[in-house]
Amino acid sequence: MNTDQARSSLGQVERLMFELVRHGTGDAGKAAAHHLSAGGARVRARLALHAADALGRPESEAVAIAAACELLHNASLVHDDLQDRDEQRRGQAAVWRKYGDAVAICVGDLLLSAAYGALGTVGASAASLSVRMHRRIAEVIHGQCADLALQGGALTSLENYERIASAKSAPLLVLPLELALTLAGREEAVAAATQAGSLFAIGYQVADDLEDAHQDAMHQELNIVSVLAASGEAEPHERARDLAIRRFQQSHAAAAALPSGSGDLLAAQASQRIERLSHSLAPA
Amino acid sequence: MNTDQARSSLGQVERLMFELVRHGTGDAGKAAAHHLSAGGARVRARLALHAADALGRPESEAVAIAAACELLHNASLVHDDLQDRDEQRRGQAAVWRKYGDAVAICVGDLLLSAAYGALGTVGASAASLSVRMHRRIAEVIHGQCADLALQGGALTSLENYERIASAKSAPLLVLPLELALTLAGREEAVAAATQAGSLFAIGYQVADDLEDAHQDAMHQELNIVSVLAASGEAEPHERARDLAIRRFQQSHAAAAALPSGSGDLLAAQASQRIERLSHSLAPA
Repeated sequence: MNTDQARSSLGQVERLMFELVRHGTGDAGKAAAHHLSAGGARVRARLALHAADALGRPESEAVAIAAACELLHNASLVHDDLQDRDEQRRGQAAVWRKYGDAVAICVGDLLLSAAYGALGTVGASAASLSVRMHRRIAEVIHGQCADLALQGGALTSLENYERIASAKSAPLLVLPLELALTLAGREEAVAAATQAGSLFAIGYQVADDLEDAHQDAMHQELNIVSVLAASGEAEPHERARDLAIRRFQQSHAAAAALPSGSGDLLAAQASQRIERLSHSLAPA
Repeated sequence: MNTDQARSSLGQVERLMFELVRHGTGDAGKAAAHHLSAGGARVRARLALHAADALGRPESEAVAIAAACELLHNASLVHDDLQDRDEQRRGQAAVWRKYGDAVAICVGDLLLSAAYGALGTVGASAASLSVRMHRRIAEVIHGQCADLALQGGALTSLENYERIASAKSAPLLVLPLELALTLAGREEAVAAATQAGSLFAIGYQVADDLEDAHQDAMHQELNIVSVLAASGEAEPHERARDLAIRRFQQSHAAAAALPSGSGDLLAAQASQRIERLSHSLAPA
């Protein structure tokens, strides 16, 4: 897929997303548009478009699954911000902050439902995609609850940390690849895609924790640096950086091995992050 | 469909619902099971089973759409209770009251997603069902937001009252009939089913308001009795009862005219409510 094609497909994804949340002129539609308009990198949409194209699927299918994955991700952001009382999202007020808690609940529901509405546009294959999407959503909800249960709670083991990091982010990161592979009849590769997504999610969480280590320590939030420090590591920042790089490397290897180059964009994302981490000094 | 068949199909609906929300042993799954276990009349599941059977659809399809409608209804209850801070549901603690706000948000999301997971089990037809279900969900969310915006706000007109009552309840009440008619290729009857559901929803809201008139007046909540009183009606309770009966009669007529008796159960529900209202004295 060349740059022009990618841009054109992404434009279609945007239009489909807005179309699916627009209904009348109510608060929920306005608030959903407010949230979607703030942009974001649309990583999940790009992963889906790339994978579907690499696997030779028609553009209409690629657009449908890309919109589904992106709508779902945004539904989770709206509800997560409310649960965590995060006031800002992409440089503007979070939905609950601007429109109130009740509307934020409605907006997340609308975006979640719209994700399935997007899948509905692919026709007969929608059934198996919906079943797979529900399974991933159930996983991510259980991961989110496990994470919530830990907040302000006891420090956890490294193994548990990785399990939670994977559970709360990997399912929605794997989904773009999983849906594309399913449409292409390459279900046997979903396990490898899951592996790639899970390792990426762990690397991502560790890298994110490194940036927030100081703040998290003040708020007693779960952070890899304190997990490693508690397990006796003398240089927890350096060990955390090594861990993130290792997980991104493993993710890269798994993604690059997916059929027809369908995981190449995820692999490229992993490479970029390895590069960045390798050149960064571990924060003091 | 005889009583034994209906009971057996309802049992399958229950099993499918629990299966779709079970995942690992996390809080969300437990809380969803807590909510579903409290029962409820399963009116939407029964409407779907009856309509699908009347239209000659196989039991597996009937069970799938029945579970979808019932899961969706329960998702809306969990989120509504949180939004309205209602502490009790079906004689037990509401999900947010027992498990906290964050888990209640997760549980509603899980039930909503599970509804689409249920549709996924019907195979190729899932696509058109998902598109229709998303449209109804968007409607109901916008109705819910319109209702929330009015709370504690100005009194509204009778016309506006009926519009809101219909918007927030009719879509999920119509859905069982709509999905069954769609599976049977009788989409031309969906408009009449929508009419029947909308009139029923208005009758239901008016009847419900009559029971809560005293309490709502104290909390300055929207109630048909105060709407009618404000418009100059000397006997607002009697006029409200008349209105409810009239809407149920109109709903009955529309439902009874649906193809192959697919709306007969809704018509019977309307009759029961007319009977009850006719024998009740208007509350003082």
